[in-house]
Amino acid sequence: MFKAMGHRLQELMILFFLAIFSKAAEGLKPCRAIVAPDAANNNYCLSWRLAVEANNVRGWWTVPARCLHYVEAYMVGGQYDRDIDLITEQILSYVSGIVLSGDGMDAWILDVDDTCLSNIFYYKGKRYGCDPYDPAAFKAWVLKERCTAIPAVFRLFQVLVESGFKVFIVTGRDQTLGQATIHNLHNQGFIGYERLFLRTASYKGQSAVAYKSDIRKQLVGEGYRIWGNVGDQWSDLQGEFSGNRTFKLPNPMYFVP
Amino acid sequence: MFKAMGHRLQELMILFFLAIFSKAAEGLKPCRAIVAPDAANNNYCLSWRLAVEANNVRGWWTVPARCLHYVEAYMVGGQYDRDIDLITEQILSYVSGIVLSGDGMDAWILDVDDTCLSNIFYYKGKRYGCDPYDPAAFKAWVLKERCTAIPAVFRLFQVLVESGFKVFIVTGRDQTLGQATIHNLHNQGFIGYERLFLRTASYKGQSAVAYKSDIRKQLVGEGYRIWGNVGDQWSDLQGEFSGNRTFKLPNPMYFVP
Repeated sequence: MFKAMGHRLQELMILFFLAIFSKAAEGLKPCRAIVAPDAANNNYCLSWRLAVEANNVRGWWTVPARCLHYVEAYMVGGQYDRDIDLITEQILSYVSGIVLSGDGMDAWILDVDDTCLSNIFYYKGKRYGCDPYDPAAFKAWVLKERCTAIPAVFRLFQVLVESGFKVFIVTGRDQTLGQATIHNLHNQGFIGYERLFLRTASYKGQSAVAYKSDIRKQLVGEGYRIWGNVGDQWSDLQGEFSGNRTFKLPNPMYFVP
Repeated sequence: MFKAMGHRLQELMILFFLAIFSKAAEGLKPCRAIVAPDAANNNYCLSWRLAVEANNVRGWWTVPARCLHYVEAYMVGGQYDRDIDLITEQILSYVSGIVLSGDGMDAWILDVDDTCLSNIFYYKGKRYGCDPYDPAAFKAWVLKERCTAIPAVFRLFQVLVESGFKVFIVTGRDQTLGQATIHNLHNQGFIGYERLFLRTASYKGQSAVAYKSDIRKQLVGEGYRIWGNVGDQWSDLQGEFSGNRTFKLPNPMYFVP
């Protein structure tokens, strides 16, 4: 009986050892995945992302397939948030140096998609931009009014409104998405902005640069001084009356011409 | 005895468990070391570098001290070269789509420092930009004529000249550095460009944007069509007559207003 008992315990110990060992091996797996095999790919995708952000790569339709995991890790792993936080610090430092005139004509422009509101949840289902743009699905997503505020941009928004800037929200979303956009901005706390501009039918098919330049021209015509302009696309920031300072937020998921 | 034996085995199992557990924990350490101590710093410096390249951080005097090792690793560890290679591919793809007029008025603009010629060797002695700009030392370095061609940009230069573009080299270096610049470009193979523009005394102290815009205005006035403009500073690419396409090469070592 003693022998049988010892044997039983021996077996148990082996099983126990195997269980612990496999657990330890599992614990190591995610670490290996971070460092070695995809390094060349990650280096390429980092170059690609940098080139997108510096506006060297333009007119791209989808994220390169080889960068799916890289872009996913970037968007949800913390670096995207850190990048936005650092840019927001720069913006707030610039804002703190502005002396407002007090005439109510000091203006600031913010974009909506992936500037005020995040579409990461939607793009997760589109393989973070590796799938092509799907206008119907995106429209359905917008109508759900479930975009979440990008925290750093929301803080910026609050500072701007409290400081006395007139904040104009200029979006490429068309007018059929007006109510949903207003609701979604509201349910995320974007309250107190001056006006929301949506793309009217006359700008359908036109570039965001042309449409957004015209809106800014109209504001400058009304007497506003555009101190700052923040967007996730270069087409938010280029063209005429772009603003005294422009700030490009990162977006490696899609390109808007 | 059975009871005592069971107890002994229980103790052994606990000891065994602790040994395995500590081994497993040790096994995780090297991995932790890879991701942990400098990770936060590297993440910050990556955000900073991205913000510099997207022109969100401007007017900086020195590289943040905490980013010395990061910038060094970036500049000499391969990623800088990879970034330039990817951008050059984009440029060459754009160039291949241009149909030249054949009238000899298709122009291209290249900057010198850290565009055609590399100053990495000099900046190594200036802690990759963590030390402040040192005009006298930089002048002495330039007079040595020992800058090396940036390989990808040199290939681009050759393609441009062979394709029939008139290449104009526009540098912020002043006229006292003219001979050294001509010699250095020549000894690195930059032969066949149309004209080299150096900063004349009248532009001393003026921004590169103003000076370089004036040069481009002059060229456009002469009838040239500026198809492309490549520089490592946003001030090479902003202002008037910037060119049909501009390309920003990376440079996290210094900022030229």
